[in-house]
Amino acid sequence: MLSVLREGPARTRTELAHITGLARSTVSQRLDALLRHRWIVPADDVISSGGRPATAFAFNKAARLVLAADLGVTHDRVALTDLGATVLAERTAEVPIDRGPEPTLAWLAQTFTELLAESGRDLAEVCGAGIGLPGPVEHVSGRPVNPPIMPGWDRFPVPEWLVERLGVPVLVDNDVNIMALGEHWAGHSEADQLIFVKIGTGIGCGTISDGRLHRGAQGAAGDIGHIRVATADGVLCPCGNRGCLEAVAGGAALAARVAAAGLPARRSRDVMELLRAGHPEVARIVRQAGREIGDVLASIVNFFNPAVIVIGGDVAEAGEHLLAGVREVIYKRSLPLATQHLRIQASELGDRAGIIGAAVMVIEDVLAPEAVDSMVTI
Amino acid sequence: MLSVLREGPARTRTELAHITGLARSTVSQRLDALLRHRWIVPADDVISSGGRPATAFAFNKAARLVLAADLGVTHDRVALTDLGATVLAERTAEVPIDRGPEPTLAWLAQTFTELLAESGRDLAEVCGAGIGLPGPVEHVSGRPVNPPIMPGWDRFPVPEWLVERLGVPVLVDNDVNIMALGEHWAGHSEADQLIFVKIGTGIGCGTISDGRLHRGAQGAAGDIGHIRVATADGVLCPCGNRGCLEAVAGGAALAARVAAAGLPARRSRDVMELLRAGHPEVARIVRQAGREIGDVLASIVNFFNPAVIVIGGDVAEAGEHLLAGVREVIYKRSLPLATQHLRIQASELGDRAGIIGAAVMVIEDVLAPEAVDSMVTI
Repeated sequence: MLSVLREGPARTRTELAHITGLARSTVSQRLDALLRHRWIVPADDVISSGGRPATAFAFNKAARLVLAADLGVTHDRVALTDLGATVLAERTAEVPIDRGPEPTLAWLAQTFTELLAESGRDLAEVCGAGIGLPGPVEHVSGRPVNPPIMPGWDRFPVPEWLVERLGVPVLVDNDVNIMALGEHWAGHSEADQLIFVKIGTGIGCGTISDGRLHRGAQGAAGDIGHIRVATADGVLCPCGNRGCLEAVAGGAALAARVAAAGLPARRSRDVMELLRAGHPEVARIVRQAGREIGDVLASIVNFFNPAVIVIGGDVAEAGEHLLAGVREVIYKRSLPLATQHLRIQASELGDRAGIIGAAVMVIEDVLAPEAVDSMVTI
Repeated sequence: MLSVLREGPARTRTELAHITGLARSTVSQRLDALLRHRWIVPADDVISSGGRPATAFAFNKAARLVLAADLGVTHDRVALTDLGATVLAERTAEVPIDRGPEPTLAWLAQTFTELLAESGRDLAEVCGAGIGLPGPVEHVSGRPVNPPIMPGWDRFPVPEWLVERLGVPVLVDNDVNIMALGEHWAGHSEADQLIFVKIGTGIGCGTISDGRLHRGAQGAAGDIGHIRVATADGVLCPCGNRGCLEAVAGGAALAARVAAAGLPARRSRDVMELLRAGHPEVARIVRQAGREIGDVLASIVNFFNPAVIVIGGDVAEAGEHLLAGVREVIYKRSLPLATQHLRIQASELGDRAGIIGAAVMVIEDVLAPEAVDSMVTI
């Protein structure tokens, strides 16, 4: 019943009984319990249904608060949201993740507390915290597993450590997965099959399969950075193989190619600046990287048949130059049936995809029917 | 309650109340209804639980019959199964599918009727028919969509045509999807992430994602035959692109390579015979095809992180020669986390994967909780 109200307009008792197929007495009982817990509120509109006026009820997005964090290698974003994943307060910072888990998480807990205080809100109103980390995370435990760029974090019990300080449930996932959740929620909730590709120094993807995050058998799904690019020369990747997508078209590779063309680029940010300044040679190099990313995505389109591919991450700032290359190869190499209605577009949330997704991860968990049933005791 | 009994041992009323959390009165009501409809039967064992003996109840696999068919380009297999997908009667035939839908389906309806008669059973006992076709099928309507090797079948209303003759619900899907369902059910039901690869003249795959068949946004998922092989020379594929997996390692390509080596091979069956006869050059060619298939699957392993890859289809008869090539490249090119527990093995059902899967498709549909609720009126 709560999910009906959450996803649709305000409804009357009669409408809810009709939609859910529940008896009117059951609907009334549950409405009372949901009202008591403030999960729903009477809507402003009073709808006349023939006879006497009937009150409509609506989902109350303000019922609880969510803490959300997207921790990067150097950049971090922390936010307070409502149950509609709307950001109520937000802060960015540059806390290097290689300082290790305890200093980083102590700073995070402190920042959550400050954001609440500044907003005049209280931890008692918070229903959970969602955290994105830049490395592989074991889904069940929420612990990082052999994260390559997070020294000291391997198997650190992130949820337990934060639960002890915050006293609210804590969910952790890798940054690309939560960005996929955020993009799906914000711009593409109608698409049951979505692939979000993050192109930064590394390249990875998060996948929504049948409306839910696909993590794979070991939580290792989406590691497309080490797929071999068929069209590229066999440049050596730090992983030991040749021709990996990341080594060919990642941020560092892009900067190296631009530098080799005689332009001053040390990292992807420099490439984006040269591109904005209108260097045609940079545009050509970016478009070629798009083609190489497209070569790998074309295989995935044939295998998976997504409805939407969203491209995000630092390098995605290259916009149409990159997308043109991606689209060119996907439309050439993938099957007509799979590309007929396929949308390939840049992230709309940009830097905020991670925190929106971290909030969504918590909201989906808190508002799962079983969870609500156990909270709302009638 | 039915799903508890279906997946586990016989249970008493007390156990069922405990497992389902339902009130004992509700359990008794539902048990009576299920007994009346013969979905369950009293189990032979009478278990003494301290005091007076309590009767246990078990799922009744014999409650209904299922009709299953796997129609190929030339070979067909038709079967009668119980609700455990156990084959009770079976027939193979060679009805060319290019005769068009009406002659083929008339023959199929006739064969179903004969199988029932021979088994002394009746259409009234049948709960549904499942059909696999060798081409793309629109999931919602069960109609073939632009099938390349089924002239006259495009958009033919297969379910409606058969429902009119048989009077039972009819479900249709493409052959590779039902084979994936069959392999998952029979040998790997514990694996939530499974990829079944069919290697015949064409190459395609069926994917189980989070325990359910993944069809993709347009039902086009699994078309891996036109993914470009990074390591192969750019042989031209009938699709117009170069280096497609099917053009490089499919049955026809394999036969052509063996023929080019001076051995008498016109199709994949000839290659399998030469291989069994022990020609080392044929073993080398088959292993190389395995490597090329492995190159494409390595990308899919990185993206999807399956627990199991099952290799089936005619060419899979090549067994270890083919699997060795597949494994070699996947273990070289995929990430350790994704391959650590990955099983890559040959189909155990062989030619029967299709009919088992066709039956499973019907059983899953008939025994879905909503479906049982609506059938078993209390």
